[in-house]
Amino acid sequence: MSNTTLESVLDKVNSPDDVKNLSINELNRLADEMREHIMTKVNTTGGHFGPNLGIIEATIALHYVFNSPKDKFVFDVSHQCYPHKMLTGRKEGFTNPEKYHTFTGYTAPEESEHDLFKVGHTSTSVSLAVGVAKARDLKGESGNVIALIGDGSLSGGEAYEGLNNAAVLGSNMIVVVNDNEMSIAPNQGGYYKNLEELRKTNGKAECNLFKAMGFDYLYVEEGNNVEALISAFSKVKDSTHPVVVHIHTEKGHGCDTALANKEGFHWILPGTLDEKAETPSEQCESYTSITTDYILGKAKKDPKVFTISPATPGAYGYTEDFRNKLGKQYVDVGIAEEHAVAFASAAASCGAKPILHVLSSFIQRTYDQLSQDLCLNNSPATILISWGAISGADATHLQVFDIPMMSNIPNLVYLAPTNKEEYLAMLDWSVEQNSYPVAIRVPFGDVVSTGVEDKTDYSVLNKFKMIEKGSDVAIVALGNFFSLGQKVKQALESVTGIKATLINPCYITGIDEKMLEDLKSNHKVVITLEDGVIDGGFGEKITRFYGNSDMKVLNFGARKEFTDRVPLEELYERYHLREDLIVQDIKACL
Amino acid sequence: MSNTTLESVLDKVNSPDDVKNLSINELNRLADEMREHIMTKVNTTGGHFGPNLGIIEATIALHYVFNSPKDKFVFDVSHQCYPHKMLTGRKEGFTNPEKYHTFTGYTAPEESEHDLFKVGHTSTSVSLAVGVAKARDLKGESGNVIALIGDGSLSGGEAYEGLNNAAVLGSNMIVVVNDNEMSIAPNQGGYYKNLEELRKTNGKAECNLFKAMGFDYLYVEEGNNVEALISAFSKVKDSTHPVVVHIHTEKGHGCDTALANKEGFHWILPGTLDEKAETPSEQCESYTSITTDYILGKAKKDPKVFTISPATPGAYGYTEDFRNKLGKQYVDVGIAEEHAVAFASAAASCGAKPILHVLSSFIQRTYDQLSQDLCLNNSPATILISWGAISGADATHLQVFDIPMMSNIPNLVYLAPTNKEEYLAMLDWSVEQNSYPVAIRVPFGDVVSTGVEDKTDYSVLNKFKMIEKGSDVAIVALGNFFSLGQKVKQALESVTGIKATLINPCYITGIDEKMLEDLKSNHKVVITLEDGVIDGGFGEKITRFYGNSDMKVLNFGARKEFTDRVPLEELYERYHLREDLIVQDIKACL
Repeated sequence: MSNTTLESVLDKVNSPDDVKNLSINELNRLADEMREHIMTKVNTTGGHFGPNLGIIEATIALHYVFNSPKDKFVFDVSHQCYPHKMLTGRKEGFTNPEKYHTFTGYTAPEESEHDLFKVGHTSTSVSLAVGVAKARDLKGESGNVIALIGDGSLSGGEAYEGLNNAAVLGSNMIVVVNDNEMSIAPNQGGYYKNLEELRKTNGKAECNLFKAMGFDYLYVEEGNNVEALISAFSKVKDSTHPVVVHIHTEKGHGCDTALANKEGFHWILPGTLDEKAETPSEQCESYTSITTDYILGKAKKDPKVFTISPATPGAYGYTEDFRNKLGKQYVDVGIAEEHAVAFASAAASCGAKPILHVLSSFIQRTYDQLSQDLCLNNSPATILISWGAISGADATHLQVFDIPMMSNIPNLVYLAPTNKEEYLAMLDWSVEQNSYPVAIRVPFGDVVSTGVEDKTDYSVLNKFKMIEKGSDVAIVALGNFFSLGQKVKQALESVTGIKATLINPCYITGIDEKMLEDLKSNHKVVITLEDGVIDGGFGEKITRFYGNSDMKVLNFGARKEFTDRVPLEELYERYHLREDLIVQDIKACL
Repeated sequence: MSNTTLESVLDKVNSPDDVKNLSINELNRLADEMREHIMTKVNTTGGHFGPNLGIIEATIALHYVFNSPKDKFVFDVSHQCYPHKMLTGRKEGFTNPEKYHTFTGYTAPEESEHDLFKVGHTSTSVSLAVGVAKARDLKGESGNVIALIGDGSLSGGEAYEGLNNAAVLGSNMIVVVNDNEMSIAPNQGGYYKNLEELRKTNGKAECNLFKAMGFDYLYVEEGNNVEALISAFSKVKDSTHPVVVHIHTEKGHGCDTALANKEGFHWILPGTLDEKAETPSEQCESYTSITTDYILGKAKKDPKVFTISPATPGAYGYTEDFRNKLGKQYVDVGIAEEHAVAFASAAASCGAKPILHVLSSFIQRTYDQLSQDLCLNNSPATILISWGAISGADATHLQVFDIPMMSNIPNLVYLAPTNKEEYLAMLDWSVEQNSYPVAIRVPFGDVVSTGVEDKTDYSVLNKFKMIEKGSDVAIVALGNFFSLGQKVKQALESVTGIKATLINPCYITGIDEKMLEDLKSNHKVVITLEDGVIDGGFGEKITRFYGNSDMKVLNFGARKEFTDRVPLEELYERYHLREDLIVQDIKACL
């Protein structure tokens, strides 16, 4: 791994205190060793690559100058916390392959007193740090509060609100702006020109966003130079007022492959560095390719169609080629989901045909914009929600809350396609219609195709599809869980002989009262299946519909809880999301 | 009303075109006449006072220079749209007392082609305008897009995200910053010093937030001078790039009483100008006074206690005196609800005891902050939600969505007190405990007092209170609707003889499974009552609990819809929220 002719420096470092005793020469060697380990580990497990390589020197310098945990570091999104973990008692998670999966990829207070918050959504660090500093001041304590934030994260509104308040805190508050000239994808927005101007003038430009916001300001051009960083951080340590330290770092520093492809190496799959990563074959159809093919075709025919990504194009297969082909019909708004919804809403109101693509986890940023900017104005925008599904994800990136969050907002039509043809039909209907705000929960997983064009008229709202008419038991299987519904039907028949009714509801935001009413005549039990949290979700509306009747109703989905890297199979067992368990529950009801 | 010796100018103005034909002298007279009418009307009906008086001249100048509706004005929060309404065919709403209630107090596309959006929450105009401009550009159309935004609204993150994107639009985009040196209350935050510096230097200061964001910039010191404004707007008309016109206006311009008390005259009750408004007597106890008394007492005893208001202190009775008494234990974060939640969350994590006070309608801004910053970190902050209730409010200010929005987020404990003593006990428990994020839905309406201290241990989560044990029918009456539950019980007994069970659930975020299970033995029907939207709300969880049983369940609350100034009695009838209608529904179930 590291230079074998010299004693390892990292071996000697078990806590931040150990960092303080090292010489500059040793600190530099420490950085090299850490870099090697991070590269090897992330290339083995997958994870955030470029952001962590860029922040190694700054992390060493921070721990050298400040005294964590008395001084408190607040990381933003924590894509860049690996070096911090290595210096705070968790290096084995990076040096020992057997412990590669011991620690989360994000800051986690349960792991260490050096981590303050569980963080995985962007643009929160400054706001959180203001709270940390306020508590310190009210308790009459001392110590530095240091918020780290990337230039990419600074486009988010919460960061700005935090800066505006940090500036008037009236006590110690240090904001380290980690400017690696990149968001996940290239930065988008007006303020990036100011960052560029500041870099060009070595921080001397008179017009300075941070000064305009009320901060004192310090620039460090050599953001990957431990010595320069130590000097800068030492200057602001124990500051009695808010100060920004703007450090110019390099995303992927020390790894030529990552430097040559900063976007591709933001987060990598195992083996990417050796070009051994299993990337999906281009021939293989996926809901991603179905979406991008549709958008390219539609945009070519209609100049009013455009697509919007809030800084996560990679998640949707919006490659550089795709973006270039779309030209002005593609807009990356930066990490700014609130703006994205308002922007799409207004454009749709004015006759354009926006398609906004957001992950389930990040649409959480936009409740009020969905409600006020979009739905209250009944703007016919299209919103694609991807990755909406129960998963073994980290607690910060669960994708199970979109149904409760969105589907209780008036006017929204939220659709759950179950296969390729349905998805395309819904998507095209949504783009072409002018009556409703529409969201579509893009199917998750392998493509299911019927091979038959779906000619359903989706403007007849809340009309469920009766797939198979049976009796006694009806299975209402939403979106991703339609296939589970099919399995339940089969298993139920083989166990009990009951030929159940199978329904594809299509609509998340309304119920087909007529169909549900008709079921009463020869059904005793209705079950609902949804790939998300049950509480406040789809199934409960059906239960409410039958509240005054003799129909028994069972709702299946996820519990209201934050799960953290729990294997999917375990969650399915916990939630009874297996055909055998569901059949047992149905039998108990009959 | 207006000067009777001269012919009225307003009489001649029925559309923006009529404004264009007036001389400067006439435009000034028009401003005076409009001011008189707005003062008289708002002092009669109540409404937004200071913001509208400050923007009259700018509105006249905008309509003089630009050509609405080809050129498009996007108002922020639309507290300042009265002059615009007067110039766009709706002046009778201000001149004719019989039509005072004809038009909403906000922009409303259904009223006029000159209104683009229904808007009532702040900080959205720039984002929306970017969408308007994008649609224009994609459609190959021309025309100016003008976003108006106040200095107060500029503290909101959505405004910043919008500015960042407006700056790189690459085509015409004019942002008029209406700087009246006030939010609803005095402005809070670092960037206001930059606005001050720009005012002091007549816009010449090198360090300029708007330039740093990538805008061209123009300053107008005389923001209430029609001629100066016409000159400025003419300069930027048909700009091919994004430009900010920063106009220095006076909130309450032309009305000495309003100028002397800018916060008090932001929004007034009928008769305020004549000092005849019915203000609640100081002797009279209200949930507002109960809250402020509690906070003052608690803060005095414990320096770690502090309260946070996102720019709406008036709504909670946080008077200047109250704020002064609290000193550093009061923080107004400006219009920045996202920051407010993250800030409170972090402070609570670090041992302070924050009490964040937000209106139901505005907590909508913070879904992701509630989820990620607060609940995922299980931070023991206290959030007070006020005004949560079905009402005859404007569609933009409904306060009925907080239960579906908040109660499906894991870890949150959301409490619904039904009287003064319960409220105080819950509040004190919340402030003192360290285990959960807690929100309390502050009771709405007249104070109900039992006179007996509530000694319930609220750390035993989700324990409902059995108020009266009966049989056959159980009434689960949440928060504000506990009194409705009492009425239903009485009415049911008098109509059917049934002595119903009455339950005060206290907890919105969980159910008392044991108590609900016990009801099965001698009850046939359970009804739930909640003062908010049913969909995704409290009652559906109870219905789901009984889904596999013979219990009939009826959920009462508001429908999922945006209502717009519908009288409360009509809504109660529509939703069956009257004891006679509920008893009918119960009888149909028995």
